[in-house]
Amino acid sequence: MEGKEEDVRLGANKFPERQPIGTAAQSQDDGKDYTEPPPAPLFEPGELSSWSFYRAGIAEFVATFLFLYITILTVMGVVKPVDLGKNKCANVGIQGIAWAFGGMIFALVYCTAGISGGHINPAVTFGLFLARKLSLTRALFYMVMQCLGAICGAGVVRGFLKGEYVRLNGGANFVAPGYTKGDGLGAEIVGTFVLVYTVFSATDAKRSARDSHVPILAPLPIGFAVFLVHLATIPITGTGINPARSLGAAIIYNKDRAWDDHWIFWVGPFIGAALAALYHQVVIRAIPFKSK
Amino acid sequence: MEGKEEDVRLGANKFPERQPIGTAAQSQDDGKDYTEPPPAPLFEPGELSSWSFYRAGIAEFVATFLFLYITILTVMGVVKPVDLGKNKCANVGIQGIAWAFGGMIFALVYCTAGISGGHINPAVTFGLFLARKLSLTRALFYMVMQCLGAICGAGVVRGFLKGEYVRLNGGANFVAPGYTKGDGLGAEIVGTFVLVYTVFSATDAKRSARDSHVPILAPLPIGFAVFLVHLATIPITGTGINPARSLGAAIIYNKDRAWDDHWIFWVGPFIGAALAALYHQVVIRAIPFKSK
Amino acid sequence: MEGKEEDVRLGANKFPERQPIGTAAQSQDDGKDYTEPPPAPLFEPGELSSWSFYRAGIAEFVATFLFLYITILTVMGVVKPVDLGKNKCANVGIQGIAWAFGGMIFALVYCTAGISGGHINPAVTFGLFLARKLSLTRALFYMVMQCLGAICGAGVVRGFLKGEYVRLNGGANFVAPGYTKGDGLGAEIVGTFVLVYTVFSATDAKRSARDSHVPILAPLPIGFAVFLVHLATIPITGTGINPARSLGAAIIYNKDRAWDDHWIFWVGPFIGAALAALYHQVVIRAIPFKSK
Amino acid sequence: MEGKEEDVRLGANKFPERQPIGTAAQSQDDGKDYTEPPPAPLFEPGELSSWSFYRAGIAEFVATFLFLYITILTVMGVVKPVDLGKNKCANVGIQGIAWAFGGMIFALVYCTAGISGGHINPAVTFGLFLARKLSLTRALFYMVMQCLGAICGAGVVRGFLKGEYVRLNGGANFVAPGYTKGDGLGAEIVGTFVLVYTVFSATDAKRSARDSHVPILAPLPIGFAVFLVHLATIPITGTGINPARSLGAAIIYNKDRAWDDHWIFWVGPFIGAALAALYHQVVIRAIPFKSK
Repeated sequence: MEGKEEDVRLGANKFPERQPIGTAAQSQDDGKDYTEPPPAPLFEPGELSSWSFYRAGIAEFVATFLFLYITILTVMGVVKPVDLGKNKCANVGIQGIAWAFGGMIFALVYCTAGISGGHINPAVTFGLFLARKLSLTRALFYMVMQCLGAICGAGVVRGFLKGEYVRLNGGANFVAPGYTKGDGLGAEIVGTFVLVYTVFSATDAKRSARDSHVPILAPLPIGFAVFLVHLATIPITGTGINPARSLGAAIIYNKDRAWDDHWIFWVGPFIGAALAALYHQVVIRAIPFKSK
Repeated sequence: MEGKEEDVRLGANKFPERQPIGTAAQSQDDGKDYTEPPPAPLFEPGELSSWSFYRAGIAEFVATFLFLYITILTVMGVVKPVDLGKNKCANVGIQGIAWAFGGMIFALVYCTAGISGGHINPAVTFGLFLARKLSLTRALFYMVMQCLGAICGAGVVRGFLKGEYVRLNGGANFVAPGYTKGDGLGAEIVGTFVLVYTVFSATDAKRSARDSHVPILAPLPIGFAVFLVHLATIPITGTGINPARSLGAAIIYNKDRAWDDHWIFWVGPFIGAALAALYHQVVIRAIPFKSK
Repeated sequence: MEGKEEDVRLGANKFPERQPIGTAAQSQDDGKDYTEPPPAPLFEPGELSSWSFYRAGIAEFVATFLFLYITILTVMGVVKPVDLGKNKCANVGIQGIAWAFGGMIFALVYCTAGISGGHINPAVTFGLFLARKLSLTRALFYMVMQCLGAICGAGVVRGFLKGEYVRLNGGANFVAPGYTKGDGLGAEIVGTFVLVYTVFSATDAKRSARDSHVPILAPLPIGFAVFLVHLATIPITGTGINPARSLGAAIIYNKDRAWDDHWIFWVGPFIGAALAALYHQVVIRAIPFKSK
Repeated sequence: MEGKEEDVRLGANKFPERQPIGTAAQSQDDGKDYTEPPPAPLFEPGELSSWSFYRAGIAEFVATFLFLYITILTVMGVVKPVDLGKNKCANVGIQGIAWAFGGMIFALVYCTAGISGGHINPAVTFGLFLARKLSLTRALFYMVMQCLGAICGAGVVRGFLKGEYVRLNGGANFVAPGYTKGDGLGAEIVGTFVLVYTVFSATDAKRSARDSHVPILAPLPIGFAVFLVHLATIPITGTGINPARSLGAAIIYNKDRAWDDHWIFWVGPFIGAALAALYHQVVIRAIPFKSK
């Protein structure tokens, strides 16, 4: 697919050793040590008759279900007054909520990466679809399964908390007082960019072949990216960066407050994911400029 | 053992490179690059005369002892008023308790995985037994050693705290006021599912051979799963998901409050572990559908 | 480049197995299993006509932009009164700020190490330049791009917070009351030493070839070093150890309070980085004493 | 050195694949795939004339200096009233102190493992000496350098805080009110056992050859072990488990309160380290029972 880059320096070292952190990749490759997978077709009819396609959808459903279950339950534990040994500071706070979101993405990407690719997020699926890493059929199927899983996960939490669930806002995303809708949209765009750019870095065939830390650690920085965006933007929007998570909480909560801002949690993440795909494929990999 | 899956596509790539995160496994294998270990027999008489069998039991005892010692001591540090520089918020809170449980599982799985498999939890042993990863003899021996270790670990903590131990509830599990027994049972089932599914993902011979992050990181997502379930469900049941941990604390605490709900912390984890074994073996690996 | 060390013991084992933690490297190498890259030239004219040079600068800009955006937003969330379920202790505190700085460095080093070397910090660039790991041209270009990225990142946070940004001190670095400027300078020197020494340990060609944990984990201890220095010195200076971060926050905040101490956050990190380079190259690697 | 274990089963698989987590090591090895390094001699005269011996001592000094500097500064930040945006809960608390100790050990073991073995703790040195992993000369030299580094690190913190240092107890270890000296000694013994057993697991030549997670992750569980012991026992003794850390803080603090209990922080860690060495070498590895 790619054969020549504008800055090939003939005779440069063919990566005889691993690319160390701290030094830039200073040479380019003619004799490539990796194979870029071909772009996925838009429609791949064979997929629909294969069990692994449906299994991947089930895995996305289960993962998103567990994701919403653990995270929304953690949110409820913070907003609900706890009284552990009369200790009012014992609740896990915003930091604990951020760990719940980031930690679950780490564990679930670890568990499902080999089954479905470990998206658990329609914005991730959208970004990878734009880069042609999966077919349109698969992308749409994943998004539907993710949303269904999220609705079920939030529903179970409501079952535990009954009436309190709505009183405590049900973990739904909306723009906090003091911020404009534009602030919320911006926070979702940049936040999703951080996440999806990390996903692209972890799925880069070229880098996986050269940097030993890339394929091994992969689920960890993806989880950390989610953790960090939550640390920063929970005070602004409660942090979506995952339309399935926002939709699941909104449907189960089902109050105007969540629905009024709901478009932000689809438009923002999709723009952020598209920008990350653009940045990675055009700037970092320069794929459009490579001749066959 | 397995030879053909329903969606084999001949001529597909035989995994010439590592399976990147973000893309689903899109092909199946005839020329397999891994060997599924044969199911363990129910009774393996040879085990009983081997030192490694008893050594594994000792390792489970010591690990569960250390697990209860560190975690129950951390719980005591939170519920007991601390006065560090007059700072009432200095205690580690629920987040610190969750780190103690999850972090110890990470460290102990790391240390004992090569000796006993690193279960430290009868629910994990039960789930792996259902998948025929170990013999019934070994499973029962592990569970007994785990429970003994847990009792000793909680006992040492009581020795440090004397009378205060009982006043502070001794880290025992029971359903918190405001939740029904059904809520508690549900929380234990889903929580144990998260843990045992992560364990199955980490022990999958097929994935270990292909995804470089699976065998290397393994103890870390298992520890994180425990951490995250504690973040979410400490306000509901104190979080068991480990019958040995619940039994050890209950025996040393020994009040009706703990014994009344005690069945939940055996039935819940065992159901959760069975569901995780079912999900992994039937849905993800489709093992029953594979012809010899 | 290097051929003989003063303590070569002939016939010693040629590292037939990995160097275990816990035992010192007890032998030296004649038959070396690694190649030390040659020192980078001061000016490398070829770089200026290669796309990978500009791409690396763009990657440093984007990474530093995201770094300031997430971290300064997290700082704002702590100093601004939050009211989550009337819970005054829910904010992430100094620990959350430290995670934001350290976690972003972990994720960004992971993502950009293969593109630009993953510096995201003029002090790191300076230290690696002193060790001749990159050319002067590249070092200056990186520093300019890092500072521009930092200014933009802090600017976006000010856009979200408007008037409050200045009232809350805008995440700017200055010496806290009760500490002298000398204390602040000392804290910056030692803190940057911790960071840059960790970077050198992760980029050591000799160790990467022998210790399997060195190349794989690399981004993680670098991120942890940043996290730990913040835990310790936020109460003293707010923790700079990164002149681009200090400059970006100072320019957007633009009050005398930040400018008066600003020199500390350039002089301190550059001295710390120089000491770390000296310690690693002279004491640890003994490079000056090696004959050709 | 070792050739036959009591439970060798001939014809068993020679570890054709990695040992998965979850299953016990069920076979033993005649055709061994690892080499146990020979026990270190008590005195190794050659060491004293090699630069790598002195370099290792310098590395231990610098690492222990940085360890005390970061950790004691973090302790001071918690006990000293902070006033960040009038937010009394912003300080990092006991959890932050525990992260400082554990995180520094993670980063410093990562950085120094290839130079000195990465002990940074006389109890670790003592445990590894008992297992004959290093010579007596080297063990004594390391302990002296560790203690000197710790004294200097605590001294710099006192320099920053002046009079406040002593008022805030200077991070010194002593048994907290409400606990007996026996409780303190017990906490130090078990805590050091957790740490040193993790170190032994990470340095096990047999396991490193078989479990891919053992050599790669090694510094991480060692750091976590330190983190977890601090979470649990800071309320009891402030947590020593490192005689150099206790000595450094005691000498710079220099009040009767620290000196009265000081013996606990040498006797406890040394007993814990000896028990861990015994457990690992005798129970886990059964080294004394192996015939030549």
